[in-house]
Amino acid sequence: MKRYALGLDYGTNSCRSLIVDLADGRELTGAVFTYPSGEAGVLSNPHDPNCARQHPQDYLDGLATVTDAIRQARDVEPGFDPADIVGIGVDTTGSTPMPVDADGTPLAMKPEFHDDLDAMAWLWKDHTSHAEASEIRQQAADLRPHYLDQSGGTYSPEWFWSKVLHCRRAAPRVFEHAYSFVECCDWIPAVLAGDTTPDRLARGVCAAGHKAMYSADWGGLPDAEFLEKLDPALAELRPRLYDRAATSDRPAGRLSAAWAEQLGLQPGIAIAVGAIDAHMGAVGAGITEGTLVKILGTSSCDMMVQPTDGEITDIPGVCGIVDGSILPDCYGIEAGQPAVGDLFLWFVKHLVPDRYGATLDEKFAALADAAYAQKPGEHGLLALDWNNGNRSILADARLTGLIVGQSLHTEAHEIYRALIEATAFGALTIIEHMEEHGVRVREIVNCGGLATKNPLLMQIYADVTGRPMKVSRSEQTCALGAAVFGAVAAGAFPNVARAQAAMCGIREHVFEPDTDARKVYDELYDLYRRLHGAFGTTSSPGTLHRVMKALVHLRERQRGEYCA
Amino acid sequence: MKRYALGLDYGTNSCRSLIVDLADGRELTGAVFTYPSGEAGVLSNPHDPNCARQHPQDYLDGLATVTDAIRQARDVEPGFDPADIVGIGVDTTGSTPMPVDADGTPLAMKPEFHDDLDAMAWLWKDHTSHAEASEIRQQAADLRPHYLDQSGGTYSPEWFWSKVLHCRRAAPRVFEHAYSFVECCDWIPAVLAGDTTPDRLARGVCAAGHKAMYSADWGGLPDAEFLEKLDPALAELRPRLYDRAATSDRPAGRLSAAWAEQLGLQPGIAIAVGAIDAHMGAVGAGITEGTLVKILGTSSCDMMVQPTDGEITDIPGVCGIVDGSILPDCYGIEAGQPAVGDLFLWFVKHLVPDRYGATLDEKFAALADAAYAQKPGEHGLLALDWNNGNRSILADARLTGLIVGQSLHTEAHEIYRALIEATAFGALTIIEHMEEHGVRVREIVNCGGLATKNPLLMQIYADVTGRPMKVSRSEQTCALGAAVFGAVAAGAFPNVARAQAAMCGIREHVFEPDTDARKVYDELYDLYRRLHGAFGTTSSPGTLHRVMKALVHLRERQRGEYCA
Repeated sequence: MKRYALGLDYGTNSCRSLIVDLADGRELTGAVFTYPSGEAGVLSNPHDPNCARQHPQDYLDGLATVTDAIRQARDVEPGFDPADIVGIGVDTTGSTPMPVDADGTPLAMKPEFHDDLDAMAWLWKDHTSHAEASEIRQQAADLRPHYLDQSGGTYSPEWFWSKVLHCRRAAPRVFEHAYSFVECCDWIPAVLAGDTTPDRLARGVCAAGHKAMYSADWGGLPDAEFLEKLDPALAELRPRLYDRAATSDRPAGRLSAAWAEQLGLQPGIAIAVGAIDAHMGAVGAGITEGTLVKILGTSSCDMMVQPTDGEITDIPGVCGIVDGSILPDCYGIEAGQPAVGDLFLWFVKHLVPDRYGATLDEKFAALADAAYAQKPGEHGLLALDWNNGNRSILADARLTGLIVGQSLHTEAHEIYRALIEATAFGALTIIEHMEEHGVRVREIVNCGGLATKNPLLMQIYADVTGRPMKVSRSEQTCALGAAVFGAVAAGAFPNVARAQAAMCGIREHVFEPDTDARKVYDELYDLYRRLHGAFGTTSSPGTLHRVMKALVHLRERQRGEYCA
Repeated sequence: MKRYALGLDYGTNSCRSLIVDLADGRELTGAVFTYPSGEAGVLSNPHDPNCARQHPQDYLDGLATVTDAIRQARDVEPGFDPADIVGIGVDTTGSTPMPVDADGTPLAMKPEFHDDLDAMAWLWKDHTSHAEASEIRQQAADLRPHYLDQSGGTYSPEWFWSKVLHCRRAAPRVFEHAYSFVECCDWIPAVLAGDTTPDRLARGVCAAGHKAMYSADWGGLPDAEFLEKLDPALAELRPRLYDRAATSDRPAGRLSAAWAEQLGLQPGIAIAVGAIDAHMGAVGAGITEGTLVKILGTSSCDMMVQPTDGEITDIPGVCGIVDGSILPDCYGIEAGQPAVGDLFLWFVKHLVPDRYGATLDEKFAALADAAYAQKPGEHGLLALDWNNGNRSILADARLTGLIVGQSLHTEAHEIYRALIEATAFGALTIIEHMEEHGVRVREIVNCGGLATKNPLLMQIYADVTGRPMKVSRSEQTCALGAAVFGAVAAGAFPNVARAQAAMCGIREHVFEPDTDARKVYDELYDLYRRLHGAFGTTSSPGTLHRVMKALVHLRERQRGEYCA
């Protein structure tokens, strides 16, 4: 008998349903739904560029992709029976919390908060909570330094407590009416299970640990005294949040009869505990101890796991290390680069003349062709990939880009190649940093749009790191990872590793490092590290860190912008 | 009675004749002739991108501009009589030497050397003599260090002896048939005087001192022993060159009857000793003690004078300090930046998308409009203007460009502004360096294409330096300077200063520094100096000089190019 799992992946602009064969990981169909609200699902405030919200109704409407996927599956596989879908997994962006009432209904869906941006889901990339993030980071550093252990010593405006505290201050009416706050990845499984009551719904350890300072080690969320000091209202909210969080191999609940009927699925099938997209993506790419999964899109997420029964030291400058956030019984380690695809897109949009092509796609293709024809080092250029700051290993969002080596003959495709190389040097820096802290990288599996669509980048990554670059077989590793958890939560496999062995794989073509190119890149990497130290740290002799920082301060002062 | 002087200006791609009223410097007419040979006068070798030559016949054909200018003058000024032209001055590019026979006829004009590139004039920007320049520099540093005093401690492939030695080695047949070698600026006056015999023709101290290691202090050109050591043939050539050189207030000769008839001028009028264009341009812009003349074109030439009866110390890293090369009885001081207009042209050609405009002119205009709207520092960027190396004060042609501070929102017009600012910081560095070495800058007069056509650049220069930027009234300061010398050589004025007072002037509009902008630029200049030290010198702590150099070496190695 055939058995399938359903993966639901909620992204920034769209969501998708993927039906996967448990026998071999074959992806039957994938249906996509672009959110109708705002600009591709993102609601913005014309008076505040930092604001990014989503309407939860879009998430519910997106469940129509399940019936679409079933319909398509019947077309491609005669005899397909949706009753053979045994479990559902859900991943979403995060931290994307929303204020809900005592029934778990988002305030945004209640008439009295209709059109109130502060009652919506606060999308991961909402940056309105700058000041609160600084305050929380500072107070934690002073009073509870261990609260920052899981997040590389920092606390981001993008994370749970920053957003909740900002809501309390900037939108007190919304805060007062909120019984609780629920992450998107926890809310969707609860909806499907037919019970969104905040006190009962399962919270995933992934969002809790990486975004809300949750740890079983200190009994859950930050203690009441700590929260009280930030704002008494947070301490008052604390009991209406949660004190336990679960891994995604566990069921969050069972599919309700109502949703089963609406979606055309069997009632009672397992719904796994939700998690953040990159973490489930790592599982879909086949993560295991020693495997670095690089999710290469607008930014990069570099995911690893390390068994909790082994040794793990603190890894400074790595965004997150959370027990169970990727695989059960493993620490989930998350590092990354805040601009990869975004860096290339910036360059091609703003600095490439039209003789390379009329559209962005044409320009990218022509740049790649021309860059491919060059030997490493031939352009004489070296760049720092910090246009959007450096997440790992410097953990400094306020660094900037740099390019050196230009002559009067330097052309756009040479700079394009130098920018790809810069992201590769940044990637190697993370790998070396992980290994220096005891996390061995034995294999690298890449996934995401750049991994499948940019062979020049993959080859350069192989040449720069001196390691083979494998590419995940799936183009939807997040949804696939969700399906893996759906299957495990349903008991179709005894554990995640067995499910991965059956359902995940890599492509036949592996990008192997070229020995000659490697030698040149070794020289260039030495130079990159010199610049990295000089501009990124204050400890190198003759540091130029102050120069980069002074430029950012000056820019903000002259623009009249927020100044940290 | 009206009196006029004629200025003849021989550039890289064209030459022009300017008729100037001695009473007030009014420029009656200017006639231009684009050289017909090669690509706008430049003859290149498809097998060697370093080769740049000119055919001397183009220079003779260019004298037709004199009759054109006279014809036009009659149109604009009824009653104009060419008999009222009292003197002629000539400036040309340099060092642009040509091999000549015993009559001073260029070998290029003899049938047996027809089509031989090595028998042509070796244009200033010919770079075939790399190896010879290194050899000469090294030998001078070892044996006659004072020979390098006039040229900031270096010797360029663009200069006289590098070219002559390379001719000897690479084109021995041409060298053997050459009775002598004559600079273009010395040859044209001799032609007009009807006697090009090398042993008799007047050599200008400007080209001799700046390009051929000539100084009256050591009895003329480098001594025979020194030349012998480079190549015995150079020592053998030495007596057929010259041992005295003259300033341009002196007549090189009198207009011959034949040329007078052909050009429609009076026979016997004075022809001034020739000089290099930038030096005569400085005179046309009104140079005097304390005035910095900036000639702003593809590159910048920064010219100053200092009386020979005062103190002058060595100014390290300044290209040339030669007695009499600009004004008689003054040291002529030449510094500069090797890419100014060229830097902007590179950027706009290679890195500006077409939404700024379809043509280069449209792009420049749109970039300037958008950049003008920005406050200093608002773009958060800082650049080093070294895409073509740094002439002053680092005297290192093998440095490269740098830009730092890019975000994911940085736009082309912001980089354009940052590049203009970088050249301004480079200009300020030169000014401060001059003043530190005792050469006071009391006034700055700008001329050249950028000075008259780029008000954004002029304003930024004023704001960055904190000094008013004056602009020369004439758009043809080189030809005007030549006319000034023509008038002085003819005895129409007792000295150059009196001629300048009558004939030269500045425009009414002066770009005044803005106090607020100045303050921001003071901060940015501090940061620029940090980068300047770190990347341009080996002496700053934690220098990154090695990074920049290593990139250049790697580029050349990977391209299989010449490696110094």
